[in-house]
Amino acid sequence: MKIAFVQMNCHFGHIEANLARAAELIESVAADLFVLPELFNTGYLFQSSDELQQLSESAKDGQTTRFLSQLCGRKNCHIVAGVAERATDGAIYNACVLVGPRGFLATYRKVHLFDTEKRWFTLGNKPFFVVDMGSAKIGMMICFDWIFPESMRSLALLGADIICHPANLVMPHCQKAMVTRCLENNVYAITANRIGSEERGDEHIAFTGCSQIVGPRGKVLTTATAREECVRIVDVDVTAARDKNLNSQNNLLADRRPNFYTY
Amino acid sequence: MKIAFVQMNCHFGHIEANLARAAELIESVAADLFVLPELFNTGYLFQSSDELQQLSESAKDGQTTRFLSQLCGRKNCHIVAGVAERATDGAIYNACVLVGPRGFLATYRKVHLFDTEKRWFTLGNKPFFVVDMGSAKIGMMICFDWIFPESMRSLALLGADIICHPANLVMPHCQKAMVTRCLENNVYAITANRIGSEERGDEHIAFTGCSQIVGPRGKVLTTATAREECVRIVDVDVTAARDKNLNSQNNLLADRRPNFYTY
Repeated sequence: MKIAFVQMNCHFGHIEANLARAAELIESVAADLFVLPELFNTGYLFQSSDELQQLSESAKDGQTTRFLSQLCGRKNCHIVAGVAERATDGAIYNACVLVGPRGFLATYRKVHLFDTEKRWFTLGNKPFFVVDMGSAKIGMMICFDWIFPESMRSLALLGADIICHPANLVMPHCQKAMVTRCLENNVYAITANRIGSEERGDEHIAFTGCSQIVGPRGKVLTTATAREECVRIVDVDVTAARDKNLNSQNNLLADRRPNFYTY
Repeated sequence: MKIAFVQMNCHFGHIEANLARAAELIESVAADLFVLPELFNTGYLFQSSDELQQLSESAKDGQTTRFLSQLCGRKNCHIVAGVAERATDGAIYNACVLVGPRGFLATYRKVHLFDTEKRWFTLGNKPFFVVDMGSAKIGMMICFDWIFPESMRSLALLGADIICHPANLVMPHCQKAMVTRCLENNVYAITANRIGSEERGDEHIAFTGCSQIVGPRGKVLTTATAREECVRIVDVDVTAARDKNLNSQNNLLADRRPNFYTY
């Protein structure tokens, strides 16, 4: 199975340009699963609720999901992409959608919001979950979720083979931590970070690129540099994520001893 | 508060020589808390239950605890040290003792046994816990416990400021993972690894040294090389481990959302 990240710059508020750029990067390559950055269609630095309201969409059938569905149809692939999701009750989530050739499959709403995101977005209101695509079980988490070991642990316990991890990283720690996460859970993880910067009002923020795919045993399979727009594809053996045995005596999940933990 | 690891070679079965060497390393320096390696007094590669039986001791008042108590009295310090603990019911644990100037304070029994340890030792039978020493709250875990994020998370949730982590590491991943652990829990961690190798029967094992002390924000404060016997001491501000705020909006523990996790 070929899995990929799309590392790209995103221009605040220019949804159509961002969609077009993502499509351009994906059109020229072939993979089964692409992960795009967090909020790849809208940009990151919202300045007002009105602005967020205007740029948010239905996860199920908004402009972005419809666009990605068509792209998935043409390329016969699945895509996980970060969007600002407007739910039917009006709440707006920092979310990501899983879309395939037949359209919308699932939305994950970021469980741990970072910093000023708390000003704009509603906290994710559903547990971590896994989608069985047949070829692989997919889990989703977004950016800052990485710092809570419970995020990836939950996904691994639910049977995820591949963690799709759209990101807008600004700190330097995540990439190394994801090596630990993949080691402790023996899964694949695709961190799709964005590049570029945003200056809005008196806020300035620079995104750090260095997207990566890490595999079982914490092996780094591919990494982007800090400033390039690119797609990196790795052909993976999904079954390697299903064997949680570290050696003949130790199993990363079965050896857990929940009765002795504090939660 | 001055915290330290003792990195040393240990000679299988030579308890008195190992105690003497540990004392020699500690006598010439000053610190409030020293951490010694896992099974520092007995060595690691047991070949029979009889052998383990012979080398195991009472945690409360065995030879090693009595020796360390006297050392703590002379140096006015506390020591965490890995021992083979023979419990009153005859079970033998891969354990570590916390000893102070007035003697035995606590024993932690390794919750996650590694590989062939399962052949010799009984699995730890008590939850992770924290000891309030006044100057700091101390948590203990041993070697392979590191790969389960639940170990350090439990200790952090219980209020540990400093994680004492005796080790006999043979794999290369732990040191980097401990950076992630200290970042995600904002604590100090003292990993005291041993050096040297053991050859017993048809088993050969080499220990990897590179003991380290990591602090809040995942900052590496001191590291040993792979082959030296040494003590490294760091003067730390314990209160830095008590502020779990990552920024004005995020708290590493309060932002957890247990209802959405799978355990």
